[in-house]
Amino acid sequence: MFEADAAGSLLIGGRPAADLVEEAGGTPLFAYDRSVVETKIARLRAALPAEVQLHYAIKANPFAPLLSHIAARVDGLDVASGGELAMALETGTDPGDISFAGPGKGDDELDAAIAAGVTLNLESEGEMERALGIAAERGRQVRAAVRINPPFDLKGSGMKMGGGAKPFGVDAERVPAMARRLVAAGADFRGYHVFAGSQNLRAEAITEAQAAGISLIAELVRETGVDAPEANIGGGFGLPYFPGETPLDLDRVGADLGRLLEGRGKELAGTRFTVELGRYIAGECGVYLTRVIDRKSSDGQVFLITDGGLHHQLAASGNFGTVIRRNYPLAKASAFAAPAEETVNVVGRLCTPLDKLGEKVELPRAEPGDLIAVFMAGAYGRTASPEAFLGHPPAREIFV
Amino acid sequence: MFEADAAGSLLIGGRPAADLVEEAGGTPLFAYDRSVVETKIARLRAALPAEVQLHYAIKANPFAPLLSHIAARVDGLDVASGGELAMALETGTDPGDISFAGPGKGDDELDAAIAAGVTLNLESEGEMERALGIAAERGRQVRAAVRINPPFDLKGSGMKMGGGAKPFGVDAERVPAMARRLVAAGADFRGYHVFAGSQNLRAEAITEAQAAGISLIAELVRETGVDAPEANIGGGFGLPYFPGETPLDLDRVGADLGRLLEGRGKELAGTRFTVELGRYIAGECGVYLTRVIDRKSSDGQVFLITDGGLHHQLAASGNFGTVIRRNYPLAKASAFAAPAEETVNVVGRLCTPLDKLGEKVELPRAEPGDLIAVFMAGAYGRTASPEAFLGHPPAREIFV
Repeated sequence: MFEADAAGSLLIGGRPAADLVEEAGGTPLFAYDRSVVETKIARLRAALPAEVQLHYAIKANPFAPLLSHIAARVDGLDVASGGELAMALETGTDPGDISFAGPGKGDDELDAAIAAGVTLNLESEGEMERALGIAAERGRQVRAAVRINPPFDLKGSGMKMGGGAKPFGVDAERVPAMARRLVAAGADFRGYHVFAGSQNLRAEAITEAQAAGISLIAELVRETGVDAPEANIGGGFGLPYFPGETPLDLDRVGADLGRLLEGRGKELAGTRFTVELGRYIAGECGVYLTRVIDRKSSDGQVFLITDGGLHHQLAASGNFGTVIRRNYPLAKASAFAAPAEETVNVVGRLCTPLDKLGEKVELPRAEPGDLIAVFMAGAYGRTASPEAFLGHPPAREIFV
Repeated sequence: MFEADAAGSLLIGGRPAADLVEEAGGTPLFAYDRSVVETKIARLRAALPAEVQLHYAIKANPFAPLLSHIAARVDGLDVASGGELAMALETGTDPGDISFAGPGKGDDELDAAIAAGVTLNLESEGEMERALGIAAERGRQVRAAVRINPPFDLKGSGMKMGGGAKPFGVDAERVPAMARRLVAAGADFRGYHVFAGSQNLRAEAITEAQAAGISLIAELVRETGVDAPEANIGGGFGLPYFPGETPLDLDRVGADLGRLLEGRGKELAGTRFTVELGRYIAGECGVYLTRVIDRKSSDGQVFLITDGGLHHQLAASGNFGTVIRRNYPLAKASAFAAPAEETVNVVGRLCTPLDKLGEKVELPRAEPGDLIAVFMAGAYGRTASPEAFLGHPPAREIFV
């Protein structure tokens, strides 16, 4: 995905990493490559059935230039807070193509969503009644779907979001009453949202969850007699982060979904299906660039101390949703793809043993001043990290 | 440590939690109780030998009103970045009582530390040479100690920072050459810093590490013939977070340290010893107050969805330096210490399954609008959490 120039320097957006650092004013820097995002979206468009709507989940990366680039290339945005709602509206995306999920929506957030006319994915009966009350006060109609806590999960997922007791959505058996209530209360009922898990590399598991989601929605339409204009069947498409992981077979997922939609019953004939992806769209485009401050040895091992760390890249340090820490792919930016010369430990600058970027990685020799590139930094990087920890400056960001 | 008023409401700083929320302008709120900090420091003073200097490590909690209160009651501050250095100087603490440790100090940070005249705990030969170079350019003297990577660790610690290959400090066998080099270069050589681990509840383990640290420093003084005016022997004093954990026997630690210092050799007769604590001083004074937004059931379980979450309290969610997630102590603030009525799951508002505050906890019945108090929130809370994650507002903070 990333290549080197003739001098061996890592190219991001066609430019040497060091040039981007200079332009941005220094390290640490998250550099996002637009061509990687564009290729990814094109691949998704080619693989998924034409009728499927592609949504971007802002939580993965809300950096404004990246978000606006993605927003122009997908069919809608999914937000998880009032803050993200404001960012989504800022891109000029039609409010009808924005949906708002999240188990703890405040009254202020419901109000903002109703005022803007975005689709609320309602997560409980209580939230529904609050939304209806706010809409009535405002003299507005609620545009809403019901988020279902499905009675199945996405098998082998990094994070399960369905199956058993969950804070997300409404258990399937209580959903029909909510759909009827929304219609009776005069809401613009948009249908359903099912999200069964995330970060899954197995096509068959994704297809299985999608099939179960679609048949659950079909059943709800039959039971309630209320049409579902829209069905958000979630995402869960995983990215390979570590050696030995096989990329998701996207073509198979798309072909399977095509067959599922072709074979759907007449109760879903008019339903528009949406796939919601965050990490899968943004994860690969980002590179975290950090400069070596010190090179030291201890007990026979070499440590490269960088000016970055877990305050910007918590996930890469292995401290966010991870049981066993593994190294994100990393490289010496000025000698990208050059043969390894030594085994080193790459750490952040924080004064805590948690601050690891690469344990016993094989790299060309690196000295103070050299740039280290940590890949897979496009999603859940800067905003998913404790930026204020230990009082170091925030990371810079650049979109090229 | 915390009590209820006659109406059953949790008191923080002698005031009902709900009053503090009103004064602060809403939830989520970190409320810090000055009397808890004062009691803690008084307990430390009473237990530790009178000659031992007590330092506060700002990284645990840099909230300015809390920091300035603590700074006035301890003998010095330890910082881990240029940002923390600025905060420490802001308190009016004598620069000679401020020390700066951290494996990745940038030239800008070294420069600021040298200009201010604080003690640099040097972590490598390379860093030492950079510091000497910057001081020479500025026409200033470097005030510096050497941080030793000790050949032992603090046994049973939450986080080990010594023993084996580490990015912190300098392996003991290379320390004498650094001490000599500093003296030869005209630096104001302050001595040594040894930090073997953190969050330890066993007095005997702490004493063992302190004994090893003191004898290591004595050996270095003998070997180099260079006096050590100061010796920072670290901290590592743990707090009990979970049921079944026994509080550290502080009196025993203090008595043991007294005996160690009494029995020290003449090479350390003039050395001033410092204990450096962060979490142990600030951890218990803080309560994270969050309001229930929704109460819902799923698969027979009750979920209380709050307006807080891991974006403010990552450690309480079990996602920071933890292998097995356990619940931080929590309570319904308006019915503190009231008998439990039900088993519930308390979660944050973030749309991720990682966002747990209490799994299957016993609480009095709580409804939307009620305040939930999460204890042990005084250290590694707000600044150690991914505040920007999912675009929700930051937590408020109040010191009472």
